[in-house]
Amino acid sequence: LKEKRRRLEVASYVEGVLAGDRVILSRAITLIESHLDSDQELAAQVLDQVLAHSGKALRIGVTGVPGVGKSTFIEQFGKMILEAGHKLAVLAIDPSSPKTKGSILGDKTRMDVLSADKRAFIRPSPAGSALGGVGAKTREAMLLCEAAGFDVILIETVGVGQSETMVKGMVDFFLLLMLAGAGDELQGIKKGIIEMSDALVINKADGKNMDAAKKAQREYANALHLFPPNASGWTPQVSTCSALHNKGLSSIWEMILSFQRQMKANGFFEENRSQQRVTWLHENIRYLLEKQFYANPKVQDQMEQILPEVKSGRAPSISMARKLLESYFHEIKD
Amino acid sequence: LKEKRRRLEVASYVEGVLAGDRVILSRAITLIESHLDSDQELAAQVLDQVLAHSGKALRIGVTGVPGVGKSTFIEQFGKMILEAGHKLAVLAIDPSSPKTKGSILGDKTRMDVLSADKRAFIRPSPAGSALGGVGAKTREAMLLCEAAGFDVILIETVGVGQSETMVKGMVDFFLLLMLAGAGDELQGIKKGIIEMSDALVINKADGKNMDAAKKAQREYANALHLFPPNASGWTPQVSTCSALHNKGLSSIWEMILSFQRQMKANGFFEENRSQQRVTWLHENIRYLLEKQFYANPKVQDQMEQILPEVKSGRAPSISMARKLLESYFHEIKD
Repeated sequence: LKEKRRRLEVASYVEGVLAGDRVILSRAITLIESHLDSDQELAAQVLDQVLAHSGKALRIGVTGVPGVGKSTFIEQFGKMILEAGHKLAVLAIDPSSPKTKGSILGDKTRMDVLSADKRAFIRPSPAGSALGGVGAKTREAMLLCEAAGFDVILIETVGVGQSETMVKGMVDFFLLLMLAGAGDELQGIKKGIIEMSDALVINKADGKNMDAAKKAQREYANALHLFPPNASGWTPQVSTCSALHNKGLSSIWEMILSFQRQMKANGFFEENRSQQRVTWLHENIRYLLEKQFYANPKVQDQMEQILPEVKSGRAPSISMARKLLESYFHEIKD
Repeated sequence: LKEKRRRLEVASYVEGVLAGDRVILSRAITLIESHLDSDQELAAQVLDQVLAHSGKALRIGVTGVPGVGKSTFIEQFGKMILEAGHKLAVLAIDPSSPKTKGSILGDKTRMDVLSADKRAFIRPSPAGSALGGVGAKTREAMLLCEAAGFDVILIETVGVGQSETMVKGMVDFFLLLMLAGAGDELQGIKKGIIEMSDALVINKADGKNMDAAKKAQREYANALHLFPPNASGWTPQVSTCSALHNKGLSSIWEMILSFQRQMKANGFFEENRSQQRVTWLHENIRYLLEKQFYANPKVQDQMEQILPEVKSGRAPSISMARKLLESYFHEIKD
């Protein structure tokens, strides 16, 4: 349906990215996101060559349910980061299906200031069953942005549970935006997301909301206090802010920098990154193994018959798994 | 080192298990736990044939850090379940390495009453990298126990985080035992475990501990209240008990039965089990795929060179994964 886009040579991508050329960076990310085998070959070569120049950014995950003011937060927080002398890349993960996309586009157009600033780079990033495993593309886009000289990366997710674990696995700091008044607004937030956060930030702490925000801050601080500290030794912080009125953002930035200092001092920063890299190797292996397996026509035929049997409890999963594997390996050996 | 145990015919295992023969049940579980390929073949056949008779038990996960009084709780709670007319199987998962086993043996000998009762069946179950994936053996042992007529299954874990997710994925109800006085005693409990629990039970609520236990109950109830309900619509309950003095156990049992009634009425009970079965099929597939991959000598050789490169960030995980997969499939096709 769509004419295949012209690709550049590997060297052109590499040089363009390393020179901080935003157009080439965009095209390199598009290449990475491509489902074509030939593009994937090319993308792997590009990544290989820019990798040595990546890894230097501070990587921050930001999540929160729709309505929490995420775009405004990122717009204002991002502006402040730029003013502090950084180059900022924002990767926005949209877990919604391609059919219902809209939230990201909406968010993007609302980030007027960042979108217009040459020191910032904003890009939606596919989630779901992206090639290379969930989130692989976002992670690789992040590496490209770093190679292009962006030294703060914000990875934004919608906060309804699909992509947060993945983002947690690729960032240094994970920030959850919330609203005061609990109840309805929180229903969309999965418990696990609260638990994996390094900071809970209660947004819209302004005007009539101020008291409720302060109360929520105390309650969450008490609740989090009951639970043990993270593996890093860091106790999750609870803050309030008003992104709209640009209040409380600099102390959040200070907190993140303080986190970074502490984690670098106690070795957890690099330890966490090494761990993330090894995890990604195994995830990539798993993804590729499963991709080939589930794409096999013989497996697909058998699976169609087997799944209802397993679901109802009539057939045990282990012997069905063995059966599927046997015909798979029999098939590929031929 | 050890003489290979004599195996029975498939039919003998099946008949023995279905007749509720505890000796045969034990031997069938041993068969399932075996690492020998021939035993695994046999075990799959046994499972196939008893499966239709499994699934009827109420499956309860019980966890808590060492010192929380888990053995005493299970002993007293189990006794009460037997007195209510049920047959009870207790599967205790020991995440410790084979070298340091001891806690389970200790626990087992302390369950004097249950161990001596013909209506109860107590069995340690291996965790860790058991064949078929983490926990696969426990799940299959559970199916065997059900086929043998046990209609309540308690799956016990140590509560330090390794095996809880797995147990959560095989039970209907997940109970976390805690102690009052928070602080030190809680440090061993991972946050995620609290979050996946259907009930928090504060044990040792007796004598001088009574006030602290009631206070902890209120605090946890408040903390949990801040978070949204589970997918099932069930709000986790916080109770107190004194297993030692046999106080509060019957209301915990009532709560679990009430949970079961509600979940059966709203369809979540069967929905959850179907989901668990499908998950296990994919887990089994993944396990078998990865097992074959990582056992490949060519892969092992390459991995040794690649891992330090990935860990340090010098080599990108995706292209290293592709490289490993290529030589793997090249190898097995020959």
